[in-house]
Amino acid sequence: MNSNNAVVQSPALKILLSVPEAEFDSFFPPSTLAALAELGHVTVVPPEALQSSKAFAEVAEDVEIAITAWGFPRLDATHLALAPKLRCVLHAASSVHFLVSEDFWEAGIPISQSGAAMAPAVAELSLTFTLALLRRVERLDHSLRSGRTWEDARMAPRAREISGACIGVVGASRTGRRYIEACTALGAEVRVYDPYLSADDPLARLSTSLEKLCAASDVVAVHAPQTPETRGLIGRDQLALLQDGTAFVNTARSTIVDMDALYAEVSSGRIDAALDVFDLEPLPIDDRWRSLPNALLTPHIAGATVDSRRRAGQIVVDELRRFLAGEPLEHAVTRTDLEKMG
Amino acid sequence: MNSNNAVVQSPALKILLSVPEAEFDSFFPPSTLAALAELGHVTVVPPEALQSSKAFAEVAEDVEIAITAWGFPRLDATHLALAPKLRCVLHAASSVHFLVSEDFWEAGIPISQSGAAMAPAVAELSLTFTLALLRRVERLDHSLRSGRTWEDARMAPRAREISGACIGVVGASRTGRRYIEACTALGAEVRVYDPYLSADDPLARLSTSLEKLCAASDVVAVHAPQTPETRGLIGRDQLALLQDGTAFVNTARSTIVDMDALYAEVSSGRIDAALDVFDLEPLPIDDRWRSLPNALLTPHIAGATVDSRRRAGQIVVDELRRFLAGEPLEHAVTRTDLEKMG
Repeated sequence: MNSNNAVVQSPALKILLSVPEAEFDSFFPPSTLAALAELGHVTVVPPEALQSSKAFAEVAEDVEIAITAWGFPRLDATHLALAPKLRCVLHAASSVHFLVSEDFWEAGIPISQSGAAMAPAVAELSLTFTLALLRRVERLDHSLRSGRTWEDARMAPRAREISGACIGVVGASRTGRRYIEACTALGAEVRVYDPYLSADDPLARLSTSLEKLCAASDVVAVHAPQTPETRGLIGRDQLALLQDGTAFVNTARSTIVDMDALYAEVSSGRIDAALDVFDLEPLPIDDRWRSLPNALLTPHIAGATVDSRRRAGQIVVDELRRFLAGEPLEHAVTRTDLEKMG
Repeated sequence: MNSNNAVVQSPALKILLSVPEAEFDSFFPPSTLAALAELGHVTVVPPEALQSSKAFAEVAEDVEIAITAWGFPRLDATHLALAPKLRCVLHAASSVHFLVSEDFWEAGIPISQSGAAMAPAVAELSLTFTLALLRRVERLDHSLRSGRTWEDARMAPRAREISGACIGVVGASRTGRRYIEACTALGAEVRVYDPYLSADDPLARLSTSLEKLCAASDVVAVHAPQTPETRGLIGRDQLALLQDGTAFVNTARSTIVDMDALYAEVSSGRIDAALDVFDLEPLPIDDRWRSLPNALLTPHIAGATVDSRRRAGQIVVDELRRFLAGEPLEHAVTRTDLEKMG
């Protein structure tokens, strides 16, 4: 059967669309919602309204396709029993750790996620951080906002341009690759550390050791996945190799970096940092990071743009078309994938 | 005579190198200084030491070439009389308004400036501002630094990516062109307003009216020169055309914008702004701009990078080679140029 037939033959496919209310229009603007509605009967219930077993049972009874984002109830034995017709889960966000269970995997229900939608957004925030730190914008702006004189603000260490700068990328991930493309387009010299880079990868010629990368870069940008192996990858010793004035950018995960060691280097003024991720999130109001003049901070929003939400909705619709056409899901997550992600 | 001969024949050419002490190494790192020294006998005296007529007279007496930056005494009748052998002035910075005089122009001494060295630096800061505002980095960072909760900080209006964003550029200047190249490389849709754009200019196909540009752009970036004609070009009426949430970027001159009208729009929260230039510089400590959560500020440093200073020193050396070879200066400034600049 081909895709078009499948669509026509399943007018009554029961689709539960359950993404947080505040994000609904971002994920599913009218055009995406219309495309989804062509594939089946769409019931919209925000996850906030599915927290009790009773509410979940009423909605889930005949659901075949569940479209989820954060906040959806965990698909454990109890919830699966309440959704006996569930055939496929399409997650419009990135991490599905909170969603799956042993019972879910044993039920053999396919699941896909939409992390691909976020990669360009994360890469762009990392580029934004890179440019801001090279130009000392965070120091200059913070000085002018904290009552220092104009002349005093101008005493910030001299700025560098990205064109010609040496940028070290830790992790040749999807996000890392987008970041590398952008930096290269702007004239930077990029080096990459990734122990899994194969010899025939186009990035192999940029490959270097983590130590050389740390010692030679004007900017170090973290784009590695969070795995047991990357935990503490950038520790005190690696940070000590950074040249004075290096810009340290992390839009990936804080666990990859020894945050105490990083704090020591940034608070001494020796290096600058721009961070979207922290060991403790939400970051407490009196957290030590919040008052450093040479740190630029955002509250873990690297993947969240108008554009990335829209792409995620589109990925879900495309995945559902594939599923109904009997094609493999392009963004499937398996139990093994998830174990690797740690 | 060719260039090489000229160099050999002028071993005793008297060159005065007078740039501010704090910037000397930036403009003239050892390699640039060595190249300069091949062209003549270089005397280094910072402008700080040339402020009295007596000090100036002693140094200037046999100077043929003066290499200047800010802080050099004005070349009026008095100073010109003290430098009777002066044949050429090579300015390592941008504006020469403060340096020249009626008497200077009447003396027919050629002068060049090094603004070209700064264009890439200014364009990059404008790009940095553009990305930061599209991603609401200034709002997010300022929130986290001002004691607001993580959740509260995350309530900032949703971020936009530069890829696919509509960027309106006011002024197809050298800087504007570099900025357009970078934005285009990152996937933005660019429109330009410049009444002097010729029909055969590659940018002509991006040309639009100022009103359409204001109404249709996610970002408006000012790259026009400061002239009597551009004064107040972007006023209350133009700013009122901006869509809610527009990012307004100015790394050119504040006189091009009605800063009171801009302040009203930014302080209302309707639009965000990133500014390197202000009506009153140095910006007073209690200036109204310093406390806006949705404004990103730098103290007029757009052109000042390690790289731009180095390029400026190199431009000076190249100009001197041209002058000695009897070739036209590539960055000459004439009285007419300066009058046009206003």
